[in-house]
Amino acid sequence: MQLTEYREIDEKVYSHKCTNGLEIFVIQKPGYSKKFATYTTKYGSMDDLFMVDGREHRVPDGIAHFLEHKMFEKEDGDVFNLFSKYGANANAFTSYDRTSYLFSTTEDFTKNLDLLMNMVEKPYFTDETVEREVGIINEEIKMYQDNPGYKLYFETLNQMYHQLPVKTDIAGTLDSISEITKEHLFTCHSTFYHPSNMVMILVGDFEVESLISHVDEHQNDRGITHIPSIERKLPEEPAEIALKHKVLEMDVQDTKVMIGFKKLQTLASASERLVRDLSMMFALDMVFGEQSPYYYELMDSGLIDDSFNFSHIEEISFAHTLLTSTSDEPAKLKERLTEIIKEVKKDEFFTDEKLANQKREVLGDYLSSLNSPEYIANQFTKYHLDGYDLYKLPEIIESITPDDAKKHFIDVMDPNNMVECILKPHG
Amino acid sequence: MQLTEYREIDEKVYSHKCTNGLEIFVIQKPGYSKKFATYTTKYGSMDDLFMVDGREHRVPDGIAHFLEHKMFEKEDGDVFNLFSKYGANANAFTSYDRTSYLFSTTEDFTKNLDLLMNMVEKPYFTDETVEREVGIINEEIKMYQDNPGYKLYFETLNQMYHQLPVKTDIAGTLDSISEITKEHLFTCHSTFYHPSNMVMILVGDFEVESLISHVDEHQNDRGITHIPSIERKLPEEPAEIALKHKVLEMDVQDTKVMIGFKKLQTLASASERLVRDLSMMFALDMVFGEQSPYYYELMDSGLIDDSFNFSHIEEISFAHTLLTSTSDEPAKLKERLTEIIKEVKKDEFFTDEKLANQKREVLGDYLSSLNSPEYIANQFTKYHLDGYDLYKLPEIIESITPDDAKKHFIDVMDPNNMVECILKPHG
Repeated sequence: MQLTEYREIDEKVYSHKCTNGLEIFVIQKPGYSKKFATYTTKYGSMDDLFMVDGREHRVPDGIAHFLEHKMFEKEDGDVFNLFSKYGANANAFTSYDRTSYLFSTTEDFTKNLDLLMNMVEKPYFTDETVEREVGIINEEIKMYQDNPGYKLYFETLNQMYHQLPVKTDIAGTLDSISEITKEHLFTCHSTFYHPSNMVMILVGDFEVESLISHVDEHQNDRGITHIPSIERKLPEEPAEIALKHKVLEMDVQDTKVMIGFKKLQTLASASERLVRDLSMMFALDMVFGEQSPYYYELMDSGLIDDSFNFSHIEEISFAHTLLTSTSDEPAKLKERLTEIIKEVKKDEFFTDEKLANQKREVLGDYLSSLNSPEYIANQFTKYHLDGYDLYKLPEIIESITPDDAKKHFIDVMDPNNMVECILKPHG
Repeated sequence: MQLTEYREIDEKVYSHKCTNGLEIFVIQKPGYSKKFATYTTKYGSMDDLFMVDGREHRVPDGIAHFLEHKMFEKEDGDVFNLFSKYGANANAFTSYDRTSYLFSTTEDFTKNLDLLMNMVEKPYFTDETVEREVGIINEEIKMYQDNPGYKLYFETLNQMYHQLPVKTDIAGTLDSISEITKEHLFTCHSTFYHPSNMVMILVGDFEVESLISHVDEHQNDRGITHIPSIERKLPEEPAEIALKHKVLEMDVQDTKVMIGFKKLQTLASASERLVRDLSMMFALDMVFGEQSPYYYELMDSGLIDDSFNFSHIEEISFAHTLLTSTSDEPAKLKERLTEIIKEVKKDEFFTDEKLANQKREVLGDYLSSLNSPEYIANQFTKYHLDGYDLYKLPEIIESITPDDAKKHFIDVMDPNNMVECILKPHG
């Protein structure tokens, strides 16, 4: 067991690696009644093609999410009900690169943790339950397909990416789901739910030593000694976009537009990715946020309305920026955005003063959030899997300069890698 | 003109006092497009009885709020429309101790500021417009009277206070409003809207010197030289509560209960009041917040539900704490709360660790909020009128100890000064 103390922000993290490879982090929160646990596998919607101990596997799109659903179902019923009986709230989610199972409780923590471990570690799949699940997930997929915002988002991703599975819905497609068999599920489970591919975060007021011993014993009892080598394969993806411009029609009231800038990942280290991620967040806020003259200009000219929003996503294998709004004149909006990107390139737009305000706001939100066990467990997991440390965020935020913001903004917001998707009412 | 720099949080405040007594504060926000102005009189719903230059005046309840409404109406129409024409969003509000007029804009700041000053400084009241307003405010009052939460709140205040006008709705009553004449309005305006009783806060990216000169010239042109002495009189209020227990029936689904603890103000200085206000916020969160075992115990036993909330209000002339929830067993809830107050008195409940988490969260929220011109203008005004400085809040937060939290909690949460109001569905 190892203890890391973060004196500046007054946090203590205990960590331990089990002999079967599982990593455990205990984040000690003295005086908190609520305890929070996440049990996460580094396995998400993008992991469709992989090699295990030298053998290649290709599985249908949407299988990580499908597997997540199926883990709650056991021979004697739905595990949700048991958590509930033991006083806990349980949940799970699947993203591009991970699947997390979690619960929070104020009572019987160990009992619930055992339930969580057994649920995640012991698969139960039959042909019948898989078939039933196909029906359930199909309904889920169909429901989303009628949602304009969702449609616009995935169409834009498809204009940006040729091959990369980020362009596919985490839930898969009607076709891909129908191909899933219980054999696929067993393969994915035995590969990615191996303890060496998982991480557990426990947040709360614990007797740390006995808690870690408890998990360690449980893991030793599983008798797992072989640690497989997993190699994820991603399809070749060109740096260029796939399709510049697209217009869709749907049963909507107003025209919506989404503009995307593709920046395929070429950054080697986790801290470089974090710097770009934060720099882009700061830069986008400086150029398009509510303090910026451009925001008011775009509003006043009617090119955007108050649905306008923007985000940058920075993952290990890809990165992109998206801007979206209801707009009466999407062509003019694209034109003006292109000009704005040129203008801030020339101007002394990214100043120390603006950045200082951004940093103070982000740091303030960060400090407030450290009181939330949910926030800590989820963000600690995310940062850890990305190769970074949530509690070192203040240092990285501090280090970012106006030049970082400017450089990354201009680099990412390259009009050559810009796509635009317009969703119009039926003509 | 005076400059105060707050190095730690990187803020600059310019201040100036006009010869007619008006105080101006300019909070410089470099790079911000949006500018925000508030023009506030130290005159609120509690100022019904006052002496000006030796003469006593008594006016009907609700007049400060009535006056606020009427200031927007001039001979040539509603001033709201003019702000809107000049690209600004205008608003106003009345509280216990102040009336604020405000606008935000990204264009024509000076033009809007002139409009604000002229609107607030030049009264226009006729018998007809006063009569029409009585009808409008009567409708507003009636609408609120059907609201269960509002009813419960004012009934509780009436159980706590014998005389103090805090127990009266800021808008007044149907009776008191009907007594208001244009002569009352002129008296209150000439007394409380005197520049020496007002403060102006301007937040944004300004040419500070020319802005202050502009306001200064405008104020000099008014030719006001006499600074009246205003003495506010509050009725004698005993330290004890008025009525311990009350049950009301209304057309509601569930039983709601509000529990109040009266603590008549006996603190001499602004910083003592701020310490008690913050100590109570921290203490209430430690005892009843989502990290506390008591919160879960009360939830699990069904004595509260997730509508449960609590607050402490600390003003110059009064202070109290309120707790409220939907509850099936209000009598048991009161009993258990009384026990909890005794338990935390005995226990080492208020710890450094718990307080450190609270402080970090509050400080984080505070730092984030300093990016919002609206937050700054309103909070700066509030703290200034209470005799304190918004930008010195971090120091005061830092200074609070677990003993402060415990001492104030036990002192305020005195079962002898506890009232309980129960709102039940019709039997």
